[in-house]
Amino acid sequence: MSSTGDASWQTLAAAKREAILASIPAKWRLDKIPTVDEQRNVAGAYIEQFLSPKEVEITKADSVGIVEKTTSGAWSAVEVAEAFCHRASLSHQLVNCLHEMFFDAALADAKDLDAWFAEHGKPKGPLHGLPVSLKDQFHVRGVDTTMGYVGWIGTFQGQRADPRRQTLESEMVRELRALGAVLYCKTAVPHTLMCGETVNNIVGYAWNPANRHLSCGGSSGGEGALIALGGSPGGFGTDIGGSIRIPSAFNGLFGLRPTSGRLPYEGMANSMDGQNSVLSVVGPLASSAGGVKLLTKSILSAEPWLHDPLVVEIPWRADLEAQTKDRIATSQLSIGFLDHDGGVGPHPPLKRALALLRNLVARSGNKVFDWQPPAKSHEAVTDLIMKTWTYDGGADVRKDFALSGEPWAPQLLDVWKERPQADASAIAATNRALRERRKEYLDYWNGTSADVFVAPCAPFTAVRPGKYDYIGYSSFVNALDLPSVVVPITTVDKGVDVVDAGFRPVSELDKKIQGDYDPEIYDGAPVSLQIIGRRYQEEKLLAIAEWLEGELKKPAGTS
Amino acid sequence: MSSTGDASWQTLAAAKREAILASIPAKWRLDKIPTVDEQRNVAGAYIEQFLSPKEVEITKADSVGIVEKTTSGAWSAVEVAEAFCHRASLSHQLVNCLHEMFFDAALADAKDLDAWFAEHGKPKGPLHGLPVSLKDQFHVRGVDTTMGYVGWIGTFQGQRADPRRQTLESEMVRELRALGAVLYCKTAVPHTLMCGETVNNIVGYAWNPANRHLSCGGSSGGEGALIALGGSPGGFGTDIGGSIRIPSAFNGLFGLRPTSGRLPYEGMANSMDGQNSVLSVVGPLASSAGGVKLLTKSILSAEPWLHDPLVVEIPWRADLEAQTKDRIATSQLSIGFLDHDGGVGPHPPLKRALALLRNLVARSGNKVFDWQPPAKSHEAVTDLIMKTWTYDGGADVRKDFALSGEPWAPQLLDVWKERPQADASAIAATNRALRERRKEYLDYWNGTSADVFVAPCAPFTAVRPGKYDYIGYSSFVNALDLPSVVVPITTVDKGVDVVDAGFRPVSELDKKIQGDYDPEIYDGAPVSLQIIGRRYQEEKLLAIAEWLEGELKKPAGTS
Repeated sequence: MSSTGDASWQTLAAAKREAILASIPAKWRLDKIPTVDEQRNVAGAYIEQFLSPKEVEITKADSVGIVEKTTSGAWSAVEVAEAFCHRASLSHQLVNCLHEMFFDAALADAKDLDAWFAEHGKPKGPLHGLPVSLKDQFHVRGVDTTMGYVGWIGTFQGQRADPRRQTLESEMVRELRALGAVLYCKTAVPHTLMCGETVNNIVGYAWNPANRHLSCGGSSGGEGALIALGGSPGGFGTDIGGSIRIPSAFNGLFGLRPTSGRLPYEGMANSMDGQNSVLSVVGPLASSAGGVKLLTKSILSAEPWLHDPLVVEIPWRADLEAQTKDRIATSQLSIGFLDHDGGVGPHPPLKRALALLRNLVARSGNKVFDWQPPAKSHEAVTDLIMKTWTYDGGADVRKDFALSGEPWAPQLLDVWKERPQADASAIAATNRALRERRKEYLDYWNGTSADVFVAPCAPFTAVRPGKYDYIGYSSFVNALDLPSVVVPITTVDKGVDVVDAGFRPVSELDKKIQGDYDPEIYDGAPVSLQIIGRRYQEEKLLAIAEWLEGELKKPAGTS
Repeated sequence: MSSTGDASWQTLAAAKREAILASIPAKWRLDKIPTVDEQRNVAGAYIEQFLSPKEVEITKADSVGIVEKTTSGAWSAVEVAEAFCHRASLSHQLVNCLHEMFFDAALADAKDLDAWFAEHGKPKGPLHGLPVSLKDQFHVRGVDTTMGYVGWIGTFQGQRADPRRQTLESEMVRELRALGAVLYCKTAVPHTLMCGETVNNIVGYAWNPANRHLSCGGSSGGEGALIALGGSPGGFGTDIGGSIRIPSAFNGLFGLRPTSGRLPYEGMANSMDGQNSVLSVVGPLASSAGGVKLLTKSILSAEPWLHDPLVVEIPWRADLEAQTKDRIATSQLSIGFLDHDGGVGPHPPLKRALALLRNLVARSGNKVFDWQPPAKSHEAVTDLIMKTWTYDGGADVRKDFALSGEPWAPQLLDVWKERPQADASAIAATNRALRERRKEYLDYWNGTSADVFVAPCAPFTAVRPGKYDYIGYSSFVNALDLPSVVVPITTVDKGVDVVDAGFRPVSELDKKIQGDYDPEIYDGAPVSLQIIGRRYQEEKLLAIAEWLEGELKKPAGTS
């Protein structure tokens, strides 16, 4: 018998799954979910058929557009919250992207904000009335945090009868409320969080809204899917190996993996908490570069270093942002391009996106060049980060699975199933090796002119279920602790992005992954790239992302 | 047979000890070293009898005074280097404070600087011609780094035939040279570095220059003794439990333990390198607050974050320095006073210093109040930091002792002698506990008005050999990763600082340590306190230290 009592994990999971659906008001329930063959892309026009014109207007706005209306009184917080609650509930029914919906609490908070505005004649803060979605690692009063584990249902992080259950709030939740944000849902994750897809025994498999043949990515996959469906203008995920960037890239969103210590992780649930060789970081995903910037800048304005001992006192640096804009305008920017990491070659749509972006930058008069870090350096840090994830031999995640006896998703790596614990000397050796590789990379960077460099987030533009076989393009960034922002570039066009008949694999894995590309299946999927900067230079990255967002919106041929 | 070959450790240590003495020019050798009864205090007038008036003038200047002369051409780099080489060589003969003297290289570098000045008509950098001493963890070309281990003699960190020996330079050494500093000696440490006294089998025991009954402290004890003797105007030590602050305090110097990630540790030798729960940090010690500031600010001007992957991009913040000066001038500063940490009570001279400083601040109109962090929080973090130091069960230091077979100094804790390795789960648990204690401390701080708070660095004003029985006053600062600056307050006056007959011990250890105080033995020892700030607010600490330095120099009764 498991520690969850008499009920089987199947019973518990089913009850929670039903409770999630039951939290959707009857008026917002869909009669039928189309099959993928009936309707591959459920975003955009498809989902909007179920909304009123006003709801469409509100939910098509990005975070910046929304706060323009809510902080000026043009839109009430309540009407904005209702529109997003409605669209979020539809999103979950279409792709399984939510763990918690707390719409009543959200509407009550929105009502309070409207009263506040009426009384004071001004917004409560820079995020007044802005709905913000949260990955199911954040603790929010009144709702559970399961992190996808059946054994966490009705507990605090797996601990029964813990007084912190549904009472403790994560530090960033406190800050978001103080800034005026409206919290209304928590988004789906793969159990353990250590997966590039989003799957667990509670809500099942979360699909890519633009192409339901494909995954929405992970581990912040629920965030990615929800924002892509317009069910949220922006929210927060976490990233220890790509978990913000992968869902951002797979869903055509902007997403920021900040340097560790820039934004507050205090008071959040996590896997393998206390492993501190490579820290998981928290960061925003949004439908626009401006949305990512708004969320980042607003959190920094709350001085999180006063409340999270791991946050560094670096306020938003308007000077660095302005300098970057000036460098762009005066054609002084220099961008390296990592077209291939030496391990696995990217799929054809990504090769096209790399060329497209390189041409765009070159046409602007800014500098482009090949990013060629020391041979094998990416492979070395990918090996090292895998060591850090498996220090405890899987003890932490096995404990959480054992709480209910539920099975592991087949997507999870075998490395956590049974492995000896690393000892202190082995951990110290890994820390030294990581530092040496970081130094080597820094020395390479100093020998170039680069402000930033561009790379894919994965060799695929989104992943086919069960085929996430290579993490090197995302995890090297975590191992080096560099900030990175994802920028959507284009979508797969099966007529253009044909199979590369001349592809020469460098390994069996490379051959296998390239073979997973199928233009018919991938057609319509978003194609995105990441821009990677020096540590703590988030302002520079976001200025570049905003610039590129504007350039990419221009009709071809103009500049 | 040990790995050092046929020679016994005694032979190797004696040969190195002789080689160190032989590196002193014959003209600078002392015929006789007085006993402590003949001459307790060998600083000031005593050592100056062996110097020319010009050498005294040069070596009595602080770092700021020296660079005023060397960057304007008033003093040549060569004459300054010669004066400090002379005085350093005397210092070593008097108290055993050096591991390496490389005067020929220093004079050659100084000559190059003078040529540079003559050619360009301006200084090479802000430290042009300034002698800077370095703890024997820095690698400098042409000389060994032994870190007090007999087994490291003639090797690179214990590895024989390693091409980095005498060729690799630590990152900060590269920066100091680029800034115009003159490097000329490396200072003594206790083997393992994990000791509040300075003792090893190569140079023996390093004494406190002001009172040779007492220790100069550790582990940057050679730095402390050398600067106290005027053999250096300032230099760099490291601190993982008090190792900059203890020798600063015991020798009446200013010393800064920066937040981890503020100054570059890259490329230095260390004990238990790769333990990253509590990082050792590098920071300056100097004869004046201005000297500490000059060294800190100059290193930051070299942009160390471009070359050390662990350094955070925070340049010197002149705005924070100016704001702090303004707060002082307008009586807005608020300083907490930790008079007793709940574990061990400070000796009478420290109680007097705490009262003296509190009165001084109060008289200035700035606020003083009792610093009362959560009960037992200091005890908890002291227990946690001890866990981090012993993660590897002593494997790292035992390996280095085994290289030569040399015995351990009796001052070292037994904890490294044989202990099981911590596993990954235990290390993660310690990391979580440290983060929770840091959060608790931060929450306490936020509930006060404090800019900074004041505490002793140790319960004793300097330590009697073999009696360093309590580290709580220094190590809690490392466990919380707070910056701290040491400010010398007064000296022991046996007529005033009498034994506290009414002392009520809170434990057997408290009783034992209070019993170690003896006014006769302690008479003349420096008495100092540390000022502790919020993370990364080194500028605030140094502005306060400069202010207090000025106030403390004023005749009593003026303000």
